[in-house]
Amino acid sequence: MGQKVVGTGARAGAPVVCVIGGGQLARMMQEAAIALGIELRALVEADDGSAAQAIRYSEVGSADDRDAIVAFTAGQPVTVEHEHIPSPILREIGSRPSADALIFAQDKLIMRSQLDAPHPRWHRAESRAEIDAAIAQLGGTAVAKTPRGGYDGKGVAIISSATDIPWTYTDGDQILLEEKVPFDREVSQLVARRPSGEIQAWPLVTSVQRDGICFEVTAPAPVPRALHEKAEAIARRIAEQTGVVGVLAVEMFAVGEDLVVNELAMRPHNTGHWTIEGAVTSQFEQHLRAVLDLPLGDTAPLAPWSVMVNLLGSELDDPREALGAVWEADPGVKIHMYGKEVRPERKIGHVTVTGDDLEQVRARARAAIAILEGR
Amino acid sequence: MGQKVVGTGARAGAPVVCVIGGGQLARMMQEAAIALGIELRALVEADDGSAAQAIRYSEVGSADDRDAIVAFTAGQPVTVEHEHIPSPILREIGSRPSADALIFAQDKLIMRSQLDAPHPRWHRAESRAEIDAAIAQLGGTAVAKTPRGGYDGKGVAIISSATDIPWTYTDGDQILLEEKVPFDREVSQLVARRPSGEIQAWPLVTSVQRDGICFEVTAPAPVPRALHEKAEAIARRIAEQTGVVGVLAVEMFAVGEDLVVNELAMRPHNTGHWTIEGAVTSQFEQHLRAVLDLPLGDTAPLAPWSVMVNLLGSELDDPREALGAVWEADPGVKIHMYGKEVRPERKIGHVTVTGDDLEQVRARARAAIAILEGR
Repeated sequence: MGQKVVGTGARAGAPVVCVIGGGQLARMMQEAAIALGIELRALVEADDGSAAQAIRYSEVGSADDRDAIVAFTAGQPVTVEHEHIPSPILREIGSRPSADALIFAQDKLIMRSQLDAPHPRWHRAESRAEIDAAIAQLGGTAVAKTPRGGYDGKGVAIISSATDIPWTYTDGDQILLEEKVPFDREVSQLVARRPSGEIQAWPLVTSVQRDGICFEVTAPAPVPRALHEKAEAIARRIAEQTGVVGVLAVEMFAVGEDLVVNELAMRPHNTGHWTIEGAVTSQFEQHLRAVLDLPLGDTAPLAPWSVMVNLLGSELDDPREALGAVWEADPGVKIHMYGKEVRPERKIGHVTVTGDDLEQVRARARAAIAILEGR
Repeated sequence: MGQKVVGTGARAGAPVVCVIGGGQLARMMQEAAIALGIELRALVEADDGSAAQAIRYSEVGSADDRDAIVAFTAGQPVTVEHEHIPSPILREIGSRPSADALIFAQDKLIMRSQLDAPHPRWHRAESRAEIDAAIAQLGGTAVAKTPRGGYDGKGVAIISSATDIPWTYTDGDQILLEEKVPFDREVSQLVARRPSGEIQAWPLVTSVQRDGICFEVTAPAPVPRALHEKAEAIARRIAEQTGVVGVLAVEMFAVGEDLVVNELAMRPHNTGHWTIEGAVTSQFEQHLRAVLDLPLGDTAPLAPWSVMVNLLGSELDDPREALGAVWEADPGVKIHMYGKEVRPERKIGHVTVTGDDLEQVRARARAAIAILEGR
């Protein structure tokens, strides 16, 4: 497409928030930033990518290029799209969340060994022999995880022996081995924390994965009140311990009345997309408020039930061609498209439906996704 | 601020909608466009203006520059921010709404003489003598309106004589003279129509003006059911008669059980801003759906009451500095800032509050605006 000489749209005086590694989260954050008169700036991978399409003040640069990041952020408040930014750079630019907080989301071994929260049984191993010993201690089967860099099911495998590891493993590499938790359901607790200490929690949600990728989220979680309270207490404690600034997502396994932490994310999270329509304050607006140390917003749900379903790839060349078909069937479905090309199992959009009847709401969201998937 | 050589963020395949005369409406439409994966393009007055700050694909050009508009729109679907675009240009680019529809919003004499709707008593005058004769017929006082170009109270005056007209009047100029309607309240009915004919209506709202400018909107209008039905029927008939595409706002005076049309707008309208938080489908999303001839969205309200209050200027240099103060007092207020510099009585933002208790909701919205106004 055409290249033009144009400005950044910047105007002196606007509150500024920079995002490193802009993708669909920065794109959705921009909707909130526009409303609030905040100037969002994104350091993006591609000039026509998901964030860059939507953010006037975009610049191409790598999320590990120290010089590019320092020049781009220029002392302004800065947050991150993902966890894969080196700590020294985060420290230099004073990122929110900080390098010291983000390390808990970046490194699963640090999370397991240092986080004050209920964990599954786990072992650290550094050789094939230690891996097999750990598997034996965990009952013959274990979940192996690379401490860093995994996401959406990548870098995670269920193994019965060191030889089962599906990625290149070299003795000396650290690896995390966890019990395979016999969970009843997966839940996610989102909270936000601002530098001055205020923490606000959204209702607990349940999530359903498909091939290790979040597929469907139900808010609030249809579980007993006690589990909601337990989850919120765990997430608040983690927020305080880590000193996170912005949104914190604590993904947990529910086993009976117990919860154990599975993963952390310190940014708006897939299990919080329902808040765009489903809560007074969306996770994207809340993240901006937290990063700017402004009072946090009301997290109350707006409807009895919200269900979000991800669009993971599609049989269609461009699912946006199916907007009309979705709305022909159901004019009340809220559709979010990320401006990404279709690839198998890639998160390219989501839908949210809110309403009074959970089964109906879920059926409507699934039916919309089926149309967008071209099934 | 810095000028950079960057692209437009455009990517082949996205549905495109162009807006001529981009301002705060295009800015708010962009929030909806981002969600839907629609590429909004705006022809703007200034490269750092309200729309340009938020829309990557912005280009500076005048709303009456035929060559610039034809080149910019390039055959893509195109809509308008305001009514002040010459008909021949609208016709050439095939605007939605069309030139033939927009003429009813552009020219108040055409609206009064040709629109099939209840009107106040009115006269057309072309000289001081005719003006004074019309005033006598209307009972000694009349509302004088320039047929074209007025907005936000400009080009409107209450007069008792031709000599009272506060703008330069030359014999031969056409002028509209209307009775001063002794209204109980002002109401506004928004509907949207798509080319294939479908029309959807939001609930009727009441509006309160301050010095001729919309100040406060309450949704739904706290008036008898019969008035809601009457208003919707009037607006649907106007939508059908004019063949409007997109959002149509019909501002009316309610006098007892009667309604008379005051003004029309054929675009998202100030009295519809409450729909961003208050309705399943916002007027901005609906306008995009209509322009692209996609099925229209559910217009049901999300809360029993929504109140929107405009920010008309401020004592503060930049009201965005007061975001924290507003939220300190009330974390659930939804704030919209348009990225505009403060000028007296200029629309620079608005707030919306939703809830169950109308008096409380209204008080919260007014309190938030008082803080943003620096009072």
